[in-house]
Amino acid sequence: METWLHWVDLAGVAVFAVAGTLMAYKKHMDGFGVVVLASVTAIGGGTLRDMILDLPVFWVQDPSFFYVIFIAAFSTIIWLRSKDTFPLRYLFFADAFGLAFFNVMGLQKAMTYGASPLVAIALGTMTGVFGGLIRDVICREIPMVLKGELYATACIIGGASYILSFQLGLSTLSCMIIGFFITLTCRLCAMKWH
Amino acid sequence: METWLHWVDLAGVAVFAVAGTLMAYKKHMDGFGVVVLASVTAIGGGTLRDMILDLPVFWVQDPSFFYVIFIAAFSTIIWLRSKDTFPLRYLFFADAFGLAFFNVMGLQKAMTYGASPLVAIALGTMTGVFGGLIRDVICREIPMVLKGELYATACIIGGASYILSFQLGLSTLSCMIIGFFITLTCRLCAMKWH
Amino acid sequence: METWLHWVDLAGVAVFAVAGTLMAYKKHMDGFGVVVLASVTAIGGGTLRDMILDLPVFWVQDPSFFYVIFIAAFSTIIWLRSKDTFPLRYLFFADAFGLAFFNVMGLQKAMTYGASPLVAIALGTMTGVFGGLIRDVICREIPMVLKGELYATACIIGGASYILSFQLGLSTLSCMIIGFFITLTCRLCAMKWH
Repeated sequence: METWLHWVDLAGVAVFAVAGTLMAYKKHMDGFGVVVLASVTAIGGGTLRDMILDLPVFWVQDPSFFYVIFIAAFSTIIWLRSKDTFPLRYLFFADAFGLAFFNVMGLQKAMTYGASPLVAIALGTMTGVFGGLIRDVICREIPMVLKGELYATACIIGGASYILSFQLGLSTLSCMIIGFFITLTCRLCAMKWH
Repeated sequence: METWLHWVDLAGVAVFAVAGTLMAYKKHMDGFGVVVLASVTAIGGGTLRDMILDLPVFWVQDPSFFYVIFIAAFSTIIWLRSKDTFPLRYLFFADAFGLAFFNVMGLQKAMTYGASPLVAIALGTMTGVFGGLIRDVICREIPMVLKGELYATACIIGGASYILSFQLGLSTLSCMIIGFFITLTCRLCAMKWH
Repeated sequence: METWLHWVDLAGVAVFAVAGTLMAYKKHMDGFGVVVLASVTAIGGGTLRDMILDLPVFWVQDPSFFYVIFIAAFSTIIWLRSKDTFPLRYLFFADAFGLAFFNVMGLQKAMTYGASPLVAIALGTMTGVFGGLIRDVICREIPMVLKGELYATACIIGGASYILSFQLGLSTLSCMIIGFFITLTCRLCAMKWH
């Protein structure tokens, strides 16, 4: 994978790990519970995608994902213990970036390994939203993503635009950029009007 | 896979997708929640089976499963919004057919890829019942299949008869037909006397 | 796998199957529910590990694991119906042995297939604790392992000592013995002081 893509990927993992840590904190979990929920949220979707595509899971050969998760979870806990508030507004923005990026990574990986377009959209969406879904199931919440909020719809629209770009013959990078910005725009609009 | 088998497989997927949609409707979910629960119910068991057998998951190269899920979920929602009742009685019958067929598909795939007989029975049962189990876990219900109802027992008896036929030297098709009808009969009897 | 290792592995599976059966009994489940919860607890962690490492799952070619699960579940149910009490104290000891052994098996398998040290520790811990986590999720309990109790911490410390031994150039068997006893000691100490 190209270096800058790897860095963006790590940034997405960090944001999702913070979201998982916040949930663990809300549920009064300690050390290990925080790490599990942060990890599941951050890498659960991609893990399922790779298992379904019958590929080696992306983090097995590369420990940097776990370092990022530890740092993100630890910093979040430090912040929560020393301040009274958490900048949720910024987290929501960061989360939208993470979602759009994970969606596009899932689309690209699925198309590379021969999935059909509809399946690629499903796998992109799964990469974006399944980590949060598993986190909510573990915490006995009805998964937020199933309750509306246009979370997944943004992934699907972004995925469709990726596929359309692909079939118009654009380069993989162009498809990824288009898919990313359309997913991001849909998600930000949904956040604004809901 | 032979063509008629593929059509029966799609019919099983459609029936299970309707069952997932009904649960989503009961839980007041909208668009994406319906699609996720319909998909999980319909293809969750087979997906887990293929991941355990270390095979490519059956729907990755073949988008027809998703088309069937969309059509089944959409038609069910339309029906539920326009009529007051749902023909649950017919659904239970169709569900028994789907269960028997998925069980036999799981058995055949497991035996083809070298699983031992006991493991093949476990994987057949898993193909039949795990989709519904995951659906119930996501919806925070205690899984129906674990609470009795002889749902899984039908799969196990059907699986044992498949294995017995196989060891008597019958052809794969004969084993599948015998396993199918014995699973179906057990399930229909269980429904009648419970 | 060497023969004696296989026997220890089966012993670990038996202990975890008993723990799963106790939970099923507490939740008033019958036949199939007992088998599912016993199986999930006993082989769930190892199954996820093998799927993540993209290996054939360990029990697909070897039905002895299922025989052990059936015998363990059945004996437990017989005991519970005929006596008023269950020797929970012995189970906790046996459970600590099972945890330590599963942890070490996961570490060894992960290192053999090229995982980095940090990932190997994660996969060892996952082998030890994920079966119980999935069991708790299915039964709608907040997973015990996320609520403290130093369950996972024992795996992590044991895993770190395995990796350290490995990097000091000790043989695989020595690493496994060291990792096993350190995990076990941590777990037993945690049980004593909590």
